[in-house]
Amino acid sequence: MLTHDLTTPALLVDADALEANLADMAAALPGPRLRPHVKAHKTTALARRQAAAGHTGFTCATVREVEGMVAAGLGEDLLLANEVLDCRRLGALVGRGARITVAVDSEATLAAVVAGGVREVLVDVNVGLPRCGIAPERAGALADAARAAGLAVRGVMGYEGHLMMLGDVAERARLTEECMGRLLAAHADVGGEVVSGGGTGTYALNTWVTEVQAGSYALMDTAYTAAGLPVRQALTVLGTVVSTTAPTAGTPGWAVADVGLKALGMDHGNPDVPGGQVWFCSDEHLTFAPGTPIAVGDRVRVVPAHVDPTCALHERLHVVRGEEVLDTWPVDLRGW
Amino acid sequence: MLTHDLTTPALLVDADALEANLADMAAALPGPRLRPHVKAHKTTALARRQAAAGHTGFTCATVREVEGMVAAGLGEDLLLANEVLDCRRLGALVGRGARITVAVDSEATLAAVVAGGVREVLVDVNVGLPRCGIAPERAGALADAARAAGLAVRGVMGYEGHLMMLGDVAERARLTEECMGRLLAAHADVGGEVVSGGGTGTYALNTWVTEVQAGSYALMDTAYTAAGLPVRQALTVLGTVVSTTAPTAGTPGWAVADVGLKALGMDHGNPDVPGGQVWFCSDEHLTFAPGTPIAVGDRVRVVPAHVDPTCALHERLHVVRGEEVLDTWPVDLRGW
Repeated sequence: MLTHDLTTPALLVDADALEANLADMAAALPGPRLRPHVKAHKTTALARRQAAAGHTGFTCATVREVEGMVAAGLGEDLLLANEVLDCRRLGALVGRGARITVAVDSEATLAAVVAGGVREVLVDVNVGLPRCGIAPERAGALADAARAAGLAVRGVMGYEGHLMMLGDVAERARLTEECMGRLLAAHADVGGEVVSGGGTGTYALNTWVTEVQAGSYALMDTAYTAAGLPVRQALTVLGTVVSTTAPTAGTPGWAVADVGLKALGMDHGNPDVPGGQVWFCSDEHLTFAPGTPIAVGDRVRVVPAHVDPTCALHERLHVVRGEEVLDTWPVDLRGW
Repeated sequence: MLTHDLTTPALLVDADALEANLADMAAALPGPRLRPHVKAHKTTALARRQAAAGHTGFTCATVREVEGMVAAGLGEDLLLANEVLDCRRLGALVGRGARITVAVDSEATLAAVVAGGVREVLVDVNVGLPRCGIAPERAGALADAARAAGLAVRGVMGYEGHLMMLGDVAERARLTEECMGRLLAAHADVGGEVVSGGGTGTYALNTWVTEVQAGSYALMDTAYTAAGLPVRQALTVLGTVVSTTAPTAGTPGWAVADVGLKALGMDHGNPDVPGGQVWFCSDEHLTFAPGTPIAVGDRVRVVPAHVDPTCALHERLHVVRGEEVLDTWPVDLRGW
C-alpha cells in the first residue's frame, strides 16, 4: 500500500527515523536505565519495538494504558506514574500476575492503592513542578505509612517537567541537578532501589535517577525540536489539500489541508508545514501559505507541535518508508 | 447510576441545559431553518434529539460523520459542508438511498463528486474567511460546470466563521451582512433553493440564509460564553482531584484534577474551573488554585474552552441531572 491510498488525515511514522531514535536512546540509556513512557504514543505495537530495544519496564499515565499493556503481553513491570483514586482495575490485573507499581503522594492515594489490591508503590515527590508529588521532607513518613499498610515501597519518582523545554541547555542541566537534589533527599528517607524521573528533554542530563521516563523521543514534535534535542522527527500527519486560493492584487494566496484541530494536539500552538507558513487551524482544516506551488489533491505532511495529544486523537498510526506503508498499528491505549 | 460511579475524566451533559438550548433554538429557527452541525458533538444520540426538535436535515464535516448519521437512520438530508477529494464512500451511501449533498469550490472537487457517485452539490463561496470557498464572481461558472456534469446544484453555502467570536454584537451584525452580501451575489449566479451559512455566533443575526449551520449551541463552551451568547453551558468534563498541595509561607496552594490535554480541546486556551483559577494543563492533569477548600477524591466540573475538539477526545457522553446519570451516549462520529 502507498500513502496515496490512505484516508486523510492520517498519522504517519517514518520507520527509519523511529528505529534510529529507538537505537540512539537504547545506546544512551540501555535496558532498565530507560522506562519508556507510553503516554506519548499510546500504541502497544510501538511499545513492543521499545521492548525489543531492551526496555521491558514501562511508564503509564492512565489505568487504561496499564490495562492495554498487560493485554498486549507487556506487563512485566509497569509503573503508573500518576495518582489514582480507584485502583480496583489495577488490583484485578495484579491478581492475574501483572507487576504494577503505582505512584502515591498522600494518605488518600495510599489508601486507594491498598483498597484496590495493588501491592507496590513509588512515593511521588514534588521536585519543583507544581503538580502532583509530596513535599520531599514528608516523603519518608508516607513511605513508613505504606510499609505499615503492607505495601512494598520500591523507591521514589519526581518529574522535572517544567524544565523539559528550557532552551538554554546549561540552565536546564543546572536546574535538573537542583530538582534531583530534592528527589535524592527524599530517597534517603524513603529507601528502595528505584529513583525514577526525567523525560525526553533531560534524558542526557539527568544522571541522578536510576531510570528515565522518556516518551516523546520515539516520535518527536516541533516543541522538542525547538528545545534543541538531537532526535529525529518521526511523526507527521498526512493531509490532502482540499482547496486553494490564488493570490490577487490585494491578498496573498493560501491552501487548505484536511488536518485540523481534531487531528492535532494544539496546546503547544500551531503545527508546521515544512516550507510553508501556517495561518490557522479550524476543526477539520489547516489554512497555510505554501512555500511552493500546490494543487487541490496534493498531499502534505504536517508536523505536530505536541506529539502526545496528537496521537490521542487518532485511531491508527501508519509506519511508512517514503511513500510505502509498511505497517498499520492501532493506537490502542486511548481513553480512560 | 450517580456521577460518583463514573470513571474520570468523563464528559457530562446537563440534561436540562441541553433541552433548554434545543428548545430555544427550535423556537428561533424552527424546522429546516436550522441544519444542526454534528461536528460539534459527534454523537448520533444527540442528533436524534435535534431531529425530535424538528430539524431533520444535518450538517457534517467529515465522511465518517455522514456514514455514522446514515447508519443511525438520520440520513434524510445530509450536507457535507466540506470539500472532499475521495467521495466513493459517500456515493455508496447515496446508492443505498441516503440523500447527501457535498460542498464544491473547484473543478477538482467537482470531479471528485462526479467520480464518487454523489449527485447533489452546493457551491461553497468564500465570504471572507480565508479557508475553503470559491470567489463569489466565479461561483456561477462552477455551478454551470456542475450542471453540465449531470449534478443537481441545490444552491450556495458560505461560512462567516471569522465573525463568530466578535465581542461587539453590532460589529458582528454589520460584518455578517457584508459577508452575506457576497453569498447572495453568488447565489444570484448559481441558482437553487438553498442559501446555507451561519453558526452559533451569528444564528440570531444572519437573516439572509435559508438555513443556519449552528452546532455549538447545544453544548456550549467558554469561548462562546465570552462572546456574549445567551445559551446555557451544558457541557463539562468531570474530574477527580488526585493531589493537593497546601499553601506555605512562600507559595500558594494548588490542586490537581485528572482532566488534562487529552480530555480538552486546547486551541481556545485553558478551560475554566468555576470558582477557581486554572494554572496549566498537562497530558493527564489540570493544576488549579481552588476557590474553596478541596480534598483529594473530590470531584470537579471543568468547563472546556472549545466544545468541538473536546468531544472528539471522548468515547462517551453522560447525560446528567445533578448527580444522577440519566443516560450514556457513545460519541460515535469520531475519526475519519
